[in-house]
Amino acid sequence: MSNSIKLAILGLGTVGTGVINLINDNLNELKRRSGRDIIITEVGTRRHRDDIDPNIMQNSDLMATAASDNVDIVVEVIGGTTLAKDVIMHAIKNGKHVVTANKALLAEHGNEIFAFAEEHNVHVAYEAAVAGGIPIIKVMREALAANKIDWLAGIINGTGNFIMTEMRDKGRPFADVLSEAQELGYAEADPTFDVEGIDAAHKLALLASIAFGIPLQFDKVYCEGITGITLQDVNYAEELGYRIKHLGFAVRRDGQGNDEASGIELRVHPTLIPQDALLANVNGVKNAVLVNSHPLGQTLYCGDGAGAGATASAVMADVMDLVRVLGSKDSSDESNSNQNNHGHHVPHLAFIPEQLSDTPILRAEQMITGYYLRVHAYDSPGVLADITRILSDAGINIDAILQKPAHKVGQVPVIILTLPVVESQMNLAIEKIEKLDTITDKVVRIRLDELA
Amino acid sequence: MSNSIKLAILGLGTVGTGVINLINDNLNELKRRSGRDIIITEVGTRRHRDDIDPNIMQNSDLMATAASDNVDIVVEVIGGTTLAKDVIMHAIKNGKHVVTANKALLAEHGNEIFAFAEEHNVHVAYEAAVAGGIPIIKVMREALAANKIDWLAGIINGTGNFIMTEMRDKGRPFADVLSEAQELGYAEADPTFDVEGIDAAHKLALLASIAFGIPLQFDKVYCEGITGITLQDVNYAEELGYRIKHLGFAVRRDGQGNDEASGIELRVHPTLIPQDALLANVNGVKNAVLVNSHPLGQTLYCGDGAGAGATASAVMADVMDLVRVLGSKDSSDESNSNQNNHGHHVPHLAFIPEQLSDTPILRAEQMITGYYLRVHAYDSPGVLADITRILSDAGINIDAILQKPAHKVGQVPVIILTLPVVESQMNLAIEKIEKLDTITDKVVRIRLDELA
Repeated sequence: MSNSIKLAILGLGTVGTGVINLINDNLNELKRRSGRDIIITEVGTRRHRDDIDPNIMQNSDLMATAASDNVDIVVEVIGGTTLAKDVIMHAIKNGKHVVTANKALLAEHGNEIFAFAEEHNVHVAYEAAVAGGIPIIKVMREALAANKIDWLAGIINGTGNFIMTEMRDKGRPFADVLSEAQELGYAEADPTFDVEGIDAAHKLALLASIAFGIPLQFDKVYCEGITGITLQDVNYAEELGYRIKHLGFAVRRDGQGNDEASGIELRVHPTLIPQDALLANVNGVKNAVLVNSHPLGQTLYCGDGAGAGATASAVMADVMDLVRVLGSKDSSDESNSNQNNHGHHVPHLAFIPEQLSDTPILRAEQMITGYYLRVHAYDSPGVLADITRILSDAGINIDAILQKPAHKVGQVPVIILTLPVVESQMNLAIEKIEKLDTITDKVVRIRLDELA
Repeated sequence: MSNSIKLAILGLGTVGTGVINLINDNLNELKRRSGRDIIITEVGTRRHRDDIDPNIMQNSDLMATAASDNVDIVVEVIGGTTLAKDVIMHAIKNGKHVVTANKALLAEHGNEIFAFAEEHNVHVAYEAAVAGGIPIIKVMREALAANKIDWLAGIINGTGNFIMTEMRDKGRPFADVLSEAQELGYAEADPTFDVEGIDAAHKLALLASIAFGIPLQFDKVYCEGITGITLQDVNYAEELGYRIKHLGFAVRRDGQGNDEASGIELRVHPTLIPQDALLANVNGVKNAVLVNSHPLGQTLYCGDGAGAGATASAVMADVMDLVRVLGSKDSSDESNSNQNNHGHHVPHLAFIPEQLSDTPILRAEQMITGYYLRVHAYDSPGVLADITRILSDAGINIDAILQKPAHKVGQVPVIILTLPVVESQMNLAIEKIEKLDTITDKVVRIRLDELA
């Protein structure tokens, strides 16, 4: 085995270029830590690039690069779920380790890809797929490996967090901030993936699998975006000591409480959380993940969730992991050669494949959260009594009430915060409230979590 | 090789008992993740304990347990730097991997211990030695392995953070909070290690080595405790938008600025940091480490820095790392046996031993920080002009000034915040200020860092 590790970079967009820059900038640090030369031998790019080191072979045939004899590790940073899948499967088939930042691909096809990798005795590393530069995959798979994970809550979409931060800090409406995010390049021209929570749901599916040892089940993530959040609700939340963040939650339910089903909640939605929680103070495009586990308790991981530098850092952390495992530079043991050394036994989904469990994923109506309710009613006597009686009859406990002066003639918004309740119960209660004669509008509801 | 991994726990205090409890509580999670049975075969304890599973051998001869044929991994949680060192060296000599939570021992004798481990082809893992349950060792050695680390700042002593938090939140004086911390068991009867910053300095020495690839140099850490912090300064800091935290800093200086020496700053001291920084909002006994690296930028890691559960989590994360590397359960390859498989090539100090550098550690007077100064002067005309002229002549830039009404007759405290300056310059300026006729007391100074 040669002393150098040969990388192929497939895709030369922001991330691919970031990886090349990182290797140039930190060549010495990489060598000092690994004792190996890490060199890019090939790049897969549709168009020839004149700004790339002429010693690096440029290949428009990505499948050929993925199988090249001149490559130990294939870095896939093309994105998308079609060509990217083909090149990854081809690389695996040819005994290459793979590093990818592709959350959509793994969330949707990870079970198949990881099984194929195990069959071929190679590893598909994906630190960059979740929360950018924050090493949450390594932390959950390795550092928390002795813990039972109870739940996690994460700000895992930077665009959404930027929008929620600007709305709150500057009192700007959603549409206005979204336009700015698009101008700044934080949001795509079609912002659906970000603002509707689909990107966060991809990442949550990955986090939940490695937290609980379950197969990837992106299609079962309950997903609610931030397009309906108004400044009015942001401000009422603040007044009550809460902040609205767009969060992904993965929660293990033991089915021990009243009406509580046993299973796992996978959900992405706007959430009121206490103002003084660290997570509520993670602002702008930053990401953060809060993990609650036994016996460790709560730990929080925060940093840049996107961008060339942060993503390249995560991609190259995976490469360094593989390099440190591919064999030491003085190893001459044939059985320890690149292709066959599967010495690093951290399973793709943190738990060994035969131990993945079929714990059910709960349906939305089975999920348990607190709620923020905004109810608009005519200012007539007894309306508050009617609302609270309906909630009380449904077994829903009220934590706080805020009744504001009428802002339209004769109408008052009533804000109610509830303790955690099964969603089906809340649905029934809201249906009854909306049938009251004194109620003038649909009830606005946003979930609430004390993160306790 | 048998399918089970045999642990010896040396020391049955809070942490040792925590490890036993963790294994009992999370047996299933450990097995699902590792595919192995992790069993405690022996415990080293001076007094026989009746509450321990009778299948576990209790041995008062710790050296014998450290060398036992019935043990794969030795967990040292005795503490101290004498017996603990002997048993660790003995375990290494007998080909055992070691897991330890012993920061004092590693900070003072780590260079020798790690060299001995490398010679014997075993690993000494020490996640629990720094910041308790926060996986900062794994993060810095592995997750940030592709980054050039510029600096780190950490709340790495929970007792100190509890005291600073209570002083600020409740307006209680230092001595009062310290007594409570002792009652709560957060602080020892002799609190010197915590409040004078020695415990933090031990941890900082470890963090700095893995950040920069330098040998452990605990004796060169500049160390200042929190015993001199008064409520008056806590409150002035708040008024100016800062919070005082007891922090450890490791900073790489390139010697490019004016008067800037090239080398590494290792320092533990009270520090004013911006109120809205996440680090300023890490409260109570929590720990947190902020790392600034290229190209990742700032990442923050926060959680419990002490306690049975958090420490046991870190100890067992190290065990899981070793288990996952000791060989897979279906491995029958003889060359892959426990004793000789050094497959996990993450070096003890993150950089390969021959690449550790002799970058100099800077002396206190070479260090560069901002300052908070509290100057007491007679309220006579021209005093402010005198002070600011002295600072200006020394090339020290003032960032903010707060002049409060006199609280003794004729005396006014003047609070000055400065931009970063070399300490030797500040020493000279303060000497001149204290010689002014109008100055009534020693100048109080506390370092300040914008964490930018």
